[in-house]
Amino acid sequence: MVNMNEMKPIGRVKTDAKKIPRHWTLSNVEGKLIIEKEYEKGLQDIREGQRIVVIFLFHKSPSFSHQNLIQKPPHKEKQKGVFSICSPIRPNPLGMSVFEVLKVERNIIFVRGIDILDGTPILDIKPYIEAGCES
Amino acid sequence: MVNMNEMKPIGRVKTDAKKIPRHWTLSNVEGKLIIEKEYEKGLQDIREGQRIVVIFLFHKSPSFSHQNLIQKPPHKEKQKGVFSICSPIRPNPLGMSVFEVLKVERNIIFVRGIDILDGTPILDIKPYIEAGCES
Repeated sequence: MVNMNEMKPIGRVKTDAKKIPRHWTLSNVEGKLIIEKEYEKGLQDIREGQRIVVIFLFHKSPSFSHQNLIQKPPHKEKQKGVFSICSPIRPNPLGMSVFEVLKVERNIIFVRGIDILDGTPILDIKPYIEAGCES
Repeated sequence: MVNMNEMKPIGRVKTDAKKIPRHWTLSNVEGKLIIEKEYEKGLQDIREGQRIVVIFLFHKSPSFSHQNLIQKPPHKEKQKGVFSICSPIRPNPLGMSVFEVLKVERNIIFVRGIDILDGTPILDIKPYIEAGCES
């Protein structure tokens, strides 16, 4: 049985961009996913041109409190329930983005579509699947 | 700043299905996401017919070890890197599925597309977004 407390980042995001778009669907920003050497072998089937799902930690978010159950996104006029928006202030500070793979060099994945901060801890990488699993 | 050790499930999956399909893209199984009462208000904008992204914990998986960096999925002939497959045995035991919302009643989301075990701890729910963020 696994324990949530045993989780640790598998790597970090590296980007020089000064302005980070608010969502990967709106981003052409490039960056690198620098994965710990111990996991490098697990990257062997990630290919240029693929899309990957990246699960990460919103490591700069303030703690969640009851009043954050409803939030007004900066680009919206109305408040919405937290589970219907992408706010980084969530009960569990988990984020998910989809990036396009530009190339993979050893333990570094070069990607396009960055919408997260430089230094963001990466927890998992998964194949992007719309229909029919490649698992 | 948030701490990964402060994460806790926001709810659990409930399904009576005896046979769970291996992926949500292949599943018509129905079930419920029973969310803790304290988060009910955050569900207010989840609507029938929507798709939602659910991040969960693979709570029954054995611990990850170096040899699991490459795995042969049961329905495939070749081994693959763990970050290119959906195996529940991963460095951090996080899973992601997309479910169709059938209805929402108070703190319970009725869904279709279940590919995870009864009792699975849910960590987050996000809007399913293909292009243009609703955050």
